Amino acid sequence: MVTFLSARDVARLVQRVGARQFWFRLVDYLRQDFSRWRDFDKSPRFASHSPGGVIELMPTSDGETFAFKYVNGHPGNTALCLQTVVAFGALADVETGYPIFLSDMTLATALRTAATSVLAASRLARPESRTMALIGLGAQSEFQASAFREVLGVDRLRVFDVDAEATEKFVRNMAPVELEITRCVDARSAAEGADIVTTITADKKRATILGDDMIAAGTHINAVGGDCPGKTELARALLLRSDIFVEYAPQTRIEGEIQQLAPEHPVTELHELLTGAHAGRTSPGAVTIFDSVGFALEDFAVLRLLRDLARETGVGTEIELTAAPANPKDLFALLQPQSERRRTPSRDAVNLAD
Amino acid sequence: MVTFLSARDVARLVQRVGARQFWFRLVDYLRQDFSRWRDFDKSPRFASHSPGGVIELMPTSDGETFAFKYVNGHPGNTALCLQTVVAFGALADVETGYPIFLSDMTLATALRTAATSVLAASRLARPESRTMALIGLGAQSEFQASAFREVLGVDRLRVFDVDAEATEKFVRNMAPVELEITRCVDARSAAEGADIVTTITADKKRATILGDDMIAAGTHINAVGGDCPGKTELARALLLRSDIFVEYAPQTRIEGEIQQLAPEHPVTELHELLTGAHAGRTSPGAVTIFDSVGFALEDFAVLRLLRDLARETGVGTEIELTAAPANPKDLFALLQPQSERRRTPSRDAVNLAD
Repeated sequence: MVTFLSARDVARLVQRVGARQFWFRLVDYLRQDFSRWRDFDKSPRFASHSPGGVIELMPTSDGETFAFKYVNGHPGNTALCLQTVVAFGALADVETGYPIFLSDMTLATALRTAATSVLAASRLARPESRTMALIGLGAQSEFQASAFREVLGVDRLRVFDVDAEATEKFVRNMAPVELEITRCVDARSAAEGADIVTTITADKKRATILGDDMIAAGTHINAVGGDCPGKTELARALLLRSDIFVEYAPQTRIEGEIQQLAPEHPVTELHELLTGAHAGRTSPGAVTIFDSVGFALEDFAVLRLLRDLARETGVGTEIELTAAPANPKDLFALLQPQSERRRTPSRDAVNLAD
Repeated sequence: MVTFLSARDVARLVQRVGARQFWFRLVDYLRQDFSRWRDFDKSPRFASHSPGGVIELMPTSDGETFAFKYVNGHPGNTALCLQTVVAFGALADVETGYPIFLSDMTLATALRTAATSVLAASRLARPESRTMALIGLGAQSEFQASAFREVLGVDRLRVFDVDAEATEKFVRNMAPVELEITRCVDARSAAEGADIVTTITADKKRATILGDDMIAAGTHINAVGGDCPGKTELARALLLRSDIFVEYAPQTRIEGEIQQLAPEHPVTELHELLTGAHAGRTSPGAVTIFDSVGFALEDFAVLRLLRDLARETGVGTEIELTAAPANPKDLFALLQPQSERRRTPSRDAVNLAD
């Protein structure tokens, strides 16, 4: 049997262990998995493109556990009152090939994206950082706010979105959290006095959400919105003056902010920070950028945590995702009517009684 | 919500509609999908190899529906009392990227493999064929016997397996079916007088289950067991004197019997038979071979049938495979405790009453 977590189950797990504890554990699982970078297959994702969007399968394996995520990207879904991105994923045992865990990953993707941002910021932002600008208040924004609040103590937010409704939604969702939220009139004003600037806007184009002159020395930029070819948020000049950190350079050079730069422009991969191979922030005045695009290893880590939490709490259901015949060489027996199979022993019993 | 069929549900569907009706519909769905060959992506499968076996993701799409199958191959599983192959798969709507259907495919793979053999034989075996040799009585054997019996009226079987237990299991499983079964002492004896010879042995090597001198003029060979690099069942001389038919030549040249032949050896693809582009059997004396290795389009067809049957019969369950927030831009709302959300309206109600 395979353990299955619906989106509701994932939410239940987060509530059960508490947001703070959940974020700490997720950041820890990500740290563990990024630290054993060499153990993982870095397979290219499979993508099926259509006029309306893309469907992707993202596989990875550490040699013990195989994981994959199904995820789409359909910008036009908003007009249909659907989400632009939904996802689910599975874990399997490499030794036997049997699937062991299946889960919604729409929520899980949002969770792991924010936790990865926090993991990077924990090594790149100045240690005393308490103020974060949040530019773009869409579906990912509250996850970022919650994770930075709980793990790094970032409790002052300067927020901006072009859409007033998005801002209302954000402020409403954050009401239960101890946070000082300042609504700003534009991105420039939001970035003023921020230790960390997070950009998560939705525009599918080469935009300049952050100009070079908007960012003070010592800022850490958590650039989450630029995550596919043709979609960027930062001015090229800002990139050129900053130290840039990425998940997996070959992928980020295609999808991230650094698609604006020469292919040989130096960047540092997150795992190099975690293993100590690279120092991270070099001075209090340096501008650091985490150019986040999302990576299969992050899905692996969040699936692993969800599986462990499901075991610990008993949340989730068992489903028969693959056939389990009593005799593995006798698959056809599954097609025999149950009644037939039951009849045989009872007839035998009659014979014995005769 | 996504409709989910467990292996038990798939078995229930087959029982509900009856084996005969099920086979006819599955062969028909396969015929429809092979006939619109050009509509399909022919993507290479993704394979993750490990010392114990392989885990594969097999995607395909017809531009309206996207399908993928997760499937493993672990020869050592038998020693652990596990199946060597288990599988599950999903369908998604290409327009929105939303998954719509999830199903066990361990049974479904066995079903589609047998139905594809029948589809090929319906165009390649002599029309009066009633006797089939079945060499190799493992997990796939009964599916082949049942499909050929119900769709093509093949009601005389000449069977052989090196393992007496496998033969017992086969004869027991086939007991409810109107079939004349002859147990033979070896493959040569099984092939004698057979109109159709089906080979489905398990040995992972270049074997010669059928020698050239064992096959009479006019025979159709349904070669199912040779399905990966280094695993074949037919003598090279037999291949050279026969007309060879395959699912998708680029894949079969790597995995099928024809890996023994020169890369330019002429073969005909199944869809060419179905659209009439190729005549199939050219004379009563010709030897024809269907060199079957399995193809993603077959998984697509069986998933499509299972989804339609689930709708028609109500078999299956609805699961929340991906998150469905009330407001698609407000994913975070899913993390708010249910009680919190319920409290708000009731407090409003009190206010109204004041």
